[in-house]
Amino acid sequence: MDEEFRKDFAELLALMDAGNPAEFKKKAADCLPVDIAEGLEEIEEDARVIKLFRMLPKDISSDVFSYMNSDQQQLIAESATNAELKALVDDMFLDDTVDFLEEMPANVVKKVLRNADESTRKLINQFLNYPENSAGSLMTIEYVDLHDYFTVRKAMDHIRRTGIDKETVYTCYVIDEQRRLVGHVSLRKLIIAPESTYIRDIMDTNTVSAMTTDDQEAIAEDFRRYDLTSIPVTDKENRLVGIITIDDILDVIQDENTEDIKKMAAIIPSDEKYMDTGVMHLVTHRLPWLMIMMLSATFSSTIITHFESVLAGAVALTAFIPMLTGSAGNSGSQTSVTVIRNMSLGEVELSDWLSVLWKEVRVAVVTGTALAVVNFLRMVIFSGTTVMVSLTVSITLMLAIVLSAAVGCLLPMGAKRLGLDPAVMASPMITTIVDCCALLIYFMIAGAMLGL
Amino acid sequence: MDEEFRKDFAELLALMDAGNPAEFKKKAADCLPVDIAEGLEEIEEDARVIKLFRMLPKDISSDVFSYMNSDQQQLIAESATNAELKALVDDMFLDDTVDFLEEMPANVVKKVLRNADESTRKLINQFLNYPENSAGSLMTIEYVDLHDYFTVRKAMDHIRRTGIDKETVYTCYVIDEQRRLVGHVSLRKLIIAPESTYIRDIMDTNTVSAMTTDDQEAIAEDFRRYDLTSIPVTDKENRLVGIITIDDILDVIQDENTEDIKKMAAIIPSDEKYMDTGVMHLVTHRLPWLMIMMLSATFSSTIITHFESVLAGAVALTAFIPMLTGSAGNSGSQTSVTVIRNMSLGEVELSDWLSVLWKEVRVAVVTGTALAVVNFLRMVIFSGTTVMVSLTVSITLMLAIVLSAAVGCLLPMGAKRLGLDPAVMASPMITTIVDCCALLIYFMIAGAMLGL
Repeated sequence: MDEEFRKDFAELLALMDAGNPAEFKKKAADCLPVDIAEGLEEIEEDARVIKLFRMLPKDISSDVFSYMNSDQQQLIAESATNAELKALVDDMFLDDTVDFLEEMPANVVKKVLRNADESTRKLINQFLNYPENSAGSLMTIEYVDLHDYFTVRKAMDHIRRTGIDKETVYTCYVIDEQRRLVGHVSLRKLIIAPESTYIRDIMDTNTVSAMTTDDQEAIAEDFRRYDLTSIPVTDKENRLVGIITIDDILDVIQDENTEDIKKMAAIIPSDEKYMDTGVMHLVTHRLPWLMIMMLSATFSSTIITHFESVLAGAVALTAFIPMLTGSAGNSGSQTSVTVIRNMSLGEVELSDWLSVLWKEVRVAVVTGTALAVVNFLRMVIFSGTTVMVSLTVSITLMLAIVLSAAVGCLLPMGAKRLGLDPAVMASPMITTIVDCCALLIYFMIAGAMLGL
Repeated sequence: MDEEFRKDFAELLALMDAGNPAEFKKKAADCLPVDIAEGLEEIEEDARVIKLFRMLPKDISSDVFSYMNSDQQQLIAESATNAELKALVDDMFLDDTVDFLEEMPANVVKKVLRNADESTRKLINQFLNYPENSAGSLMTIEYVDLHDYFTVRKAMDHIRRTGIDKETVYTCYVIDEQRRLVGHVSLRKLIIAPESTYIRDIMDTNTVSAMTTDDQEAIAEDFRRYDLTSIPVTDKENRLVGIITIDDILDVIQDENTEDIKKMAAIIPSDEKYMDTGVMHLVTHRLPWLMIMMLSATFSSTIITHFESVLAGAVALTAFIPMLTGSAGNSGSQTSVTVIRNMSLGEVELSDWLSVLWKEVRVAVVTGTALAVVNFLRMVIFSGTTVMVSLTVSITLMLAIVLSAAVGCLLPMGAKRLGLDPAVMASPMITTIVDCCALLIYFMIAGAMLGL
C-alpha cells in the first residue's frame, strides 16, 4: 500500500467511524478497488471489516470483493443475507466467482449456490469441474459474441446494449449458427467500418484460440507470442464457450515462474501465500527433497571411506574437499539453470542437445582452466602445499568443472526427453550427483599422482 | 514454429520460387507476422531472405520486420533503398523502431536517421537516450489523446480519423491545454455515452501513470496490480509524453524473471539469446562468481587444516563432510530462494524480517530434527559407525540446518536493506558461507563429544 493511499484509507475509516455514509461513499468511489481490498486486509477487527464493506457503493463492492483475501471473503459471505449474496455473485465476473468459491468451505459454497439462479448455478458447477491450470478454469463467460450475418450497425447496437457487463468488448468473437468460432473483429475496426458492412466481410479469420483442456502455460505463451489481450476458448466441437483475458495471464506467468524457481531450489511448489502458510505446511514441501539428497550423500561417504588410505597418506587433501565439491556444484548449477530456463522459454529445443552440450563443455574448459590456474598459484604461494598436492587439486578442479557442466546440461534435457519436469533437475540434484563424481576424480588422480 | 505453419511457410517459399507474386501476397496476408518472421529465421541464404521480405504485402511487412532478429533486420536495412527504409520506419511503431536501432551498428542507424523526417529523427534521438529499462525506453508515442473540452462526438471523430495508426485506442488519455494528463476514458464508455457529453464529465480522474524515469519492474507490477492494458507516461511536469502497452510488459516480466533466476544461480545476467551467444561471452558472465566462491572456500580449507587433529582422531568424521555441507547448503537455498522470490513479488516486506526469521527457524528445527533422526539410524544400522560418532554427525546436521536457514533468511533481507540486489544472495553465496559454519559446528561438537 503506498503512502498516498494509506492517508486516503485512514480518511475512509474516519468517515465510517463518524457515521457519515454520504461522504464515505463519495471518498470510496474515488479509490481503486484493489487498494481498498488491501486496506481491508490491515483491519484486524472482523466487525469493522464487515461494516466498511457494507458501506461501499454498490457498483464497486463486487470489484473490491474479488480482490479480497479468502479469509475476509469468507467473513463477508457468511455474514451476508441471501439477497446480498445473490446481488454480489450476480455482479461479479464468473471467473472471479469461481476463484472465490474454490477457496471456500462447503457451507459457504452451498449458501452461494442456493442463492444463485439456476443457469448461474449450472455454470459455476461446470467451471469448478475444469482441471486446475486448464483454460477452462481460467476462462470467463462475459464476452461479446457476434453472428457473422450481423451488420456493423447491429453489432454496435449489440455491444452498446450488452457490453457494459462484459469483461472486454475490444475483441469480439464471431460465431456461426452452431455457435462455432469462425473469426474475430476488433472494436477499432467496427467503429471505423461503414454501418451497413457485414461482419463476415470485415472479420479476421486468422483467430488464435485455445481449447478448454489446454494448459495455462501454453496459453500464456500464445499471449506473449501473438501480443494478444484476450483469447477465445472453444470446446471439442470448436464451439465458443468462453474467453481468457490478459489480466489473468499476468498472474499465470508469475505463478509459473514462481513454481519453476521453487522446483529449482528443491522445494515442492504450492499455491499458498508465504505469509499465510503454516510451519508444518512448509516442512512438508521442503523435507522430501532434503531427505532424498541427504540419503544420496551416502554415496559420497562411501567413496571417502573407501579411499581412506589415500586421505591418510596426504592429510592436506581433506582440506580441499569442500572447495572442490562446492565449485563443481556451482558450475553445474550455472549450466543446469541456464538450460532449464532456456527450454522453458522455448529458446532451446531438445533437438539442440548436441550443440548445447558442445557449447557448455567449451565454456567449462575455459572457466575450469582459469579456476585451476588461480587455485594452483594460491595453493603454492599462500597455503604452502607441495607442488604435487597443488597440482592434484587443480587438475581435479578443472576436470570436475567440465564434468559438472556436462551433467548440468544432460540431466535436465534427459528429464525432458523422458517427459519429466526438467526444473527438478536443477542445482540441488546436480550438486549431489556432482559431489560423488568430483570425489572419485579426486581420489583417482591423487592415487596416480601421489602414488598413494 | 508449429507444424501447421511450417506447411504454410513451405508453400510461401514455393510460390516465391515459382515467381507467383499475386498468390504469394494472398497467402502471406493469411499468415500472422510473428510466424513469418520465425520462418525467415530458418532461411540460411541472405538473398532469399531479402527476396521474400520484399515480396510481402506492404501492410504487413513492417509488422514482420519488428518481429525479426537483429541480424536479419540489419540485412534488410542495409539492402533497402532510402525510400524503402523511410516507408518502413514511417510504418513501424516508434518503440519498435527504437528497439531495432538499439541493436544496429552505427552505419545503419545513420542511414535510418538520414531518411527519417525531422520530427521523427528528433523523437528517435530522444528515445535512444532514455536509460535502459526505464519507462522512457519502453514507451511509444502512438496513443490517442483527447482534450477535456471535447464532446464525445468530437472524440469519436478524432479516434476514427487518427486511431488506425495508434498502438491502442481502447484507453484514451485526456489532457488539458498544457498537455498535462488529467484523466482517462475507455472506448467502451465513449461508445455508450450520449454524443453531446463532454469528456471532462465522463472521464476517470483516478489514472495510474508512470514517469519516464520509472523502472520497468515497478511498472510491470502496476499492470499486474491494477489489471491495466496500457499506462500513460508523463515527464516531470506531468505532461503526457507516451504510453506503454501490455505486450511489451509481458516481455519485461519474462526478462525480469530470467534475470532473477540467473542471479540466483550466480550468473551475471545478459540480454543475449543463448543460442546466439559466444563461448567467451558466456565465460565472462559465469567466471567471476565461480572465482569469488572458489577463493572464499579458502576459509573452509583453513578450518579443516586447523582441526586436522580432530579428523586424525576419528577418520570416519571425514566421510560425512560432503553430506553435512550439502544438506546445510540445500536447506539454506530453500530458505533464501523463498525469501528472495517473496520479496520480489511484494509478498514479504523488509519490516516482516522478524516474523520471517521466526517462521524459517521453526521450519528448520522440524526438518533438521527429522533429518538428524533418520541420519542417526542410518549411520548406526547401516554404516556401523559408533553411537558417539553418529550422534556427533546428527547433532551437527540439525544445528547446521537451523543455522543455514537463519543465514538464508537474513542475508537476502540484509542485502535489500543495504540497497543491494537480494537475488545475488541466493544458493551459491549461501552455500559458501554455510559450508564454513557447518564445519566449525562439526569440529566443535566432535571435540566436545569425542574428547578430541
